[in-house]
Amino acid sequence: MKVCLVAVGSELLRPGFRESHSNWLAEKLESAGFEVVSLQVVPDDPEAIASSLIQARSSGGLVLVTGGIGPTRDDRTRQALAAVLGRPLRRDPRAESQVREWCRRHRLPCTLAQRQQALVPEGAFSLRNRAGSAPGILVTRGNGALVALPGVFSEMSSMFQALIPKLRHLARSQPVTATLRSAGVGESRIDRRIRGVHARFPRVEVTTLALPGEVTIQLRSRGPGAPGEVERCRRWVARKLRNDLISDTGEVLEKVVFNLLKRRGWRLVAAESCTAGLVSARLARVPGVSSVFAAGAVCYNDRAKERMLSVPRDVLVKHGAVSRPAVLAMARGAAETFGAEVAVAVTGIAGPGGGTAGTPVGTVHWAVVHPEGQTARMRCLAGDRERIRVHAACAALDLVRRTLLGARAGGARHRA
Amino acid sequence: MKVCLVAVGSELLRPGFRESHSNWLAEKLESAGFEVVSLQVVPDDPEAIASSLIQARSSGGLVLVTGGIGPTRDDRTRQALAAVLGRPLRRDPRAESQVREWCRRHRLPCTLAQRQQALVPEGAFSLRNRAGSAPGILVTRGNGALVALPGVFSEMSSMFQALIPKLRHLARSQPVTATLRSAGVGESRIDRRIRGVHARFPRVEVTTLALPGEVTIQLRSRGPGAPGEVERCRRWVARKLRNDLISDTGEVLEKVVFNLLKRRGWRLVAAESCTAGLVSARLARVPGVSSVFAAGAVCYNDRAKERMLSVPRDVLVKHGAVSRPAVLAMARGAAETFGAEVAVAVTGIAGPGGGTAGTPVGTVHWAVVHPEGQTARMRCLAGDRERIRVHAACAALDLVRRTLLGARAGGARHRA
Repeated sequence: MKVCLVAVGSELLRPGFRESHSNWLAEKLESAGFEVVSLQVVPDDPEAIASSLIQARSSGGLVLVTGGIGPTRDDRTRQALAAVLGRPLRRDPRAESQVREWCRRHRLPCTLAQRQQALVPEGAFSLRNRAGSAPGILVTRGNGALVALPGVFSEMSSMFQALIPKLRHLARSQPVTATLRSAGVGESRIDRRIRGVHARFPRVEVTTLALPGEVTIQLRSRGPGAPGEVERCRRWVARKLRNDLISDTGEVLEKVVFNLLKRRGWRLVAAESCTAGLVSARLARVPGVSSVFAAGAVCYNDRAKERMLSVPRDVLVKHGAVSRPAVLAMARGAAETFGAEVAVAVTGIAGPGGGTAGTPVGTVHWAVVHPEGQTARMRCLAGDRERIRVHAACAALDLVRRTLLGARAGGARHRA
Repeated sequence: MKVCLVAVGSELLRPGFRESHSNWLAEKLESAGFEVVSLQVVPDDPEAIASSLIQARSSGGLVLVTGGIGPTRDDRTRQALAAVLGRPLRRDPRAESQVREWCRRHRLPCTLAQRQQALVPEGAFSLRNRAGSAPGILVTRGNGALVALPGVFSEMSSMFQALIPKLRHLARSQPVTATLRSAGVGESRIDRRIRGVHARFPRVEVTTLALPGEVTIQLRSRGPGAPGEVERCRRWVARKLRNDLISDTGEVLEKVVFNLLKRRGWRLVAAESCTAGLVSARLARVPGVSSVFAAGAVCYNDRAKERMLSVPRDVLVKHGAVSRPAVLAMARGAAETFGAEVAVAVTGIAGPGGGTAGTPVGTVHWAVVHPEGQTARMRCLAGDRERIRVHAACAALDLVRRTLLGARAGGARHRA
C-alpha cells in the first residue's frame, strides 16, 4: 500500500534544521510492505496542514502525520484533521486518563491545554503513548487509514512500531531490493557504465545516491519473478562496476576493509593529516574493529609527522608535507611505530587557504604499505574543506581495499 | 515572499536516501529575504508532480522545483509543468543551442531525448546551465514565479545563485535571526529553562534542534522592532543557559574552543579511544586550526595507549582502560609526548559489546590537562554505537571549553 508522509513543524523548514523522521519511517514502512510515495513538510498552520492532508488523502493509501498533536498553542494537527474529515472533536476517555496519568507522574497540573491532547475526531481511535503525553490518532476508512503521531522521535518511533502490526493487513508484498556500493568514480561515470540497465531489466527500478567519493546503487522490484530479476540485475551491475565495486550486498566500505584485514590476519594503522581522524573514525564505526585496527595518528603539522611517524625532516623540507615521498614516509613510519602489517596515510590541502600554484587546494596524496608492497596515489579533489576531507577519508579506505584485493587502483595511481 | 519547494525524484523517497537540497535552499532563500513555507518530495510521476505544483501554486508565492528536467524517461517535470500551466511546450532556440553545445563538448550525439531538454512551456524563459545539460525554466506570473532547476546539486546550486538577483524584487525584508548553541544538557532541560520565552517575547519564534550532546536554539522575528526584540531575547536566553551556553552568535563548539586556545596561546592535542578520531576531525573543521591543534592519537587498544601515550601498564591493569586514572594518564601522556599545553582524552565503551555490570555500554571518561590543573569527568551516555561516539566527541570538546573558561563543568565532574 502507498503511504503519504506529512511532517508538521515550522522549525523543519528553517535553515539548519532538517526533517529526518521520514528516512527512518521509509525504512520501517518498506520492510513492512508499504511504499512511501510522497513527503510533505508543512508549518504549524492549520490551513497548510489541512491542505496537505487533503492532497495526501487523495492518493488513497495510508496517510501518516507526525507532529503538531502536543499541548502547546503551536500544535494544530488535531484541528486540521477534524476539519479535513468534517467531523467534530470528541473527548476520548481512555486518552484522557492517559494524559492525566502522565501529568500526575510528571507532577504537572493537568491543565485544559494538556487535556486537549485527549480530543480525537468523532469515530477515530486514540493510540497509547508510553514515552510522552500526547496520544496518537488513528482514523480508518475503507481500504486506507490516517494516523497522527507526535513529532518527538522517541515517542513517534515507539508508537509507530506498536502500530505496524495493526496496519499489516493494508500492506502488500515487500519489494525485492539489492544495494551495491562503489567508490573511486563519480555518479555520472557510474550512470554511463550501467546505461543499459533500464532496457535490460525494465521491471527493476534503479536509483543512485552519491556521497563524496562513493556512489550507492539501489535495485528494487515487486511481484512474481522479482527475486530472479533483481538477482540477475545485481550481477550485471556488479560486472559493470568492476574494481570500483565495494560490495554487492550493501556492505559499507569500512566493513569490507575490516573483513579483508580479518581474512589476512593483518592489522591496520592510519596516519592522517588533512583528514585529521576521519579515516580512523570511519573504521571505528564497525563494532569489534579493535581486532584489526590498533591505532591512528593525526599529524597536523611537520613536527608531529617527525615525532609520531619518524618522517625524515629532509623529506618534508625537500618535497613538502603534501607530496608522494612524504605520504609514503608517513605510511612506513606508522607501520613501524605501531608494529602493524598495513598502514594507510593521507596528506593534502583541504583549504580554503594553503594552496599554491603547484599544489592547489584539493590536492591529496595517499599511500598504503603492507607486507607485499606499497602503493601511492594522488588526486585533486573538488569541493569545499569539509567535502574534500570526507572524500579524502573515503578514498583512503578505498585504497586499502584495492590494495588488499591486489587490484588495479586506477586513476593516477603508481606503484612506488 | 513565501516559497514552496518541490523536490522531484523517486529515489528521494527510498530508505537510505534523503532529500537534502531544501536545507541548502532554505538558508540561501532566507538570507535573500524569502521564507520557505512548505516542502514536497514527490516521485518521478507526472500526476504526482502536477498535483504538488497545483498545491504549491495555490499558496501564491515562489514555487521552486528541483529535479526531473534531464534527458531520461524518468524526467517528467517539464510535462507536468506544461499541464499545470495549461500551455503547450515550445522549443526554446537559446536553450537548444546550449544543449547542442553541451553534447558537442561531451562528444555525445545530440539525440531527440537530449533536445527535449530545450522545451519550455509557452511564455516561459529558459535558464542557462553552465554545469550540465539541462536548462532551467522560469515562469513569471503577477506577483510570483515558478522556477524549475535540475536535481544535480552542482547544477542546481550554481543556477540558483545566478537566479537570485533576478528574483530579488519578489523578496521582502529579511527576518532578524539569532542562533545560540549549548552543550552538556538535553533538549527537554533547555526547553524547561527557557520556558518563559514565549510569554516574554511573543513576537519571536523560538526553535530548538538537538544533536547528540548539543542543542541549537534559533530566534527569529520580522518587522519594525524586530532587531531590538531579538537582541533582548538573545540576552535573556543566554542568561538562562548559563555555563551551558557555547555561543550566542551561532559560533560552533570547535570554533569557540579554537578561539579560547588562540587567546591563551595554548596548543591542544587529543588522545582518543572510543571516539577514534572524531574529536580531532571535528576540531579540524576550523580552517587554520593548525595554529592551535598539533596532533591527535587514536589508541584503540591497551598497547597503543602504552606506546603512544606512555600510559603505565599497571594503571590499565589495575583500573581498566575505561577509568578515571586511565583517562587522566592518557591526557598527561599526550601533553608530554607532543609537548602541548592542553590535552584532552576520551575513553569509553561505545558498544554494542564490551560492557560489564560495573562499566556498562555508554560509560565514557574524559580528562583535560592544562598548565593550571586538570579535570576529569564521567558519564553514561545513551543511544547506539554511533550516537555514543558522536556525543562523547562533542562532550570532549565541551570539557575543553569549560576548562579553559575556568567554569564549573557540572555533572559528575571532579577536580583530580
